[in-house]
Amino acid sequence: MRRNAPKSVVKRLPVYLRILDNLIRRDVEIISSRALSEETGFTAEQIRKDLAYFGAFGTRGTGYNTGYLREKLLKIIGLDKQTNLVVIGAGHLGKALTRYNISKNPYVKVVGIFDNSPEEIGTDIGGIIIRPMSDLEEVIKNHNVRVAMITVPADAAQDVVSGLADSGITAILNFAPTKLKVPENVYVHNADLTIELQSLIYYAMEDEKQH
Amino acid sequence: MRRNAPKSVVKRLPVYLRILDNLIRRDVEIISSRALSEETGFTAEQIRKDLAYFGAFGTRGTGYNTGYLREKLLKIIGLDKQTNLVVIGAGHLGKALTRYNISKNPYVKVVGIFDNSPEEIGTDIGGIIIRPMSDLEEVIKNHNVRVAMITVPADAAQDVVSGLADSGITAILNFAPTKLKVPENVYVHNADLTIELQSLIYYAMEDEKQH
Repeated sequence: MRRNAPKSVVKRLPVYLRILDNLIRRDVEIISSRALSEETGFTAEQIRKDLAYFGAFGTRGTGYNTGYLREKLLKIIGLDKQTNLVVIGAGHLGKALTRYNISKNPYVKVVGIFDNSPEEIGTDIGGIIIRPMSDLEEVIKNHNVRVAMITVPADAAQDVVSGLADSGITAILNFAPTKLKVPENVYVHNADLTIELQSLIYYAMEDEKQH
Repeated sequence: MRRNAPKSVVKRLPVYLRILDNLIRRDVEIISSRALSEETGFTAEQIRKDLAYFGAFGTRGTGYNTGYLREKLLKIIGLDKQTNLVVIGAGHLGKALTRYNISKNPYVKVVGIFDNSPEEIGTDIGGIIIRPMSDLEEVIKNHNVRVAMITVPADAAQDVVSGLADSGITAILNFAPTKLKVPENVYVHNADLTIELQSLIYYAMEDEKQH
């Protein structure tokens, strides 16, 4: 069942989770899909369809129990137990990612940051020491790491990634501005900031033309 | 015509642009939509449809002239003339974005980075000095800035954004983990790293279950 959920649905699950966190903080116990729609910007129909991929969580006519739905979503996403991850590349972005909002989820933990630059190795990034690339495989194995974030330059990314699949990495968040070739059982998500920015510029210009 | 292009098409334009840059570097002058398909991972049909939104750029039976298509895409996206942008929030991520790959496009220029933290103000980030938020409006007006990247904490983001529309900002790349309310003529793209990471963890776990 879970494997049938389209990528677009999977992408919305963390959005629902965040909204539920906010609702629970405000002591809201029950929420209708209509109210969820107002909070998320997705249609109520979309929300019902999205959640139906994973089971029946709501009660017709009343809505969803926020605490119950949150627990189910944590489980569906895989945030109900600790996920260890590694950051590969200790440039500005790698450092930022290591320190940034990742630490805010108690179940997601950066267990290593790696770089080959001698000036960087040994530097402490919020309690995590930058280690040489030669230590990567050992850390992945010892901490049962499945998720890697790649922030190395484009021309180094493919070499880095080719070794990862053998070490047990199954999901990669790629910030390197290049298309990576990976085995079929590895999932790559490209978080390409240049591309985000360029498509944004298109909209900025649209507006300029209009006025 | 341009305004009719769906978001999904606009998102692919920078991908085509990058592929064309690579092809031109390798002295490839003509490329078929089939070969473009292999390079991008999108279907040839998709590519033909995407480009058809903006005009007729290919020759049936031969393909696209890489240099010509690149120039057209630069123009369509708005990268044929300089785009100035500001980074708001000088935490690790704001600093990384200021230094990161933005500088790699000669037509995209960070003209200011802003923060209210007294320890940060005055710090030099690759030649750009962190300035107080009170200078923001002046910089936006003086440099005719349309695009802002937001990296302030979630609880500060809405306040920051509310002032931006009045200053002339029309496109926002939002890294703050919160949904922003903006006037209709402002386009917001949420580049939420927590959400990217959480949907990635879903796929890492899928794989774990499968094996």
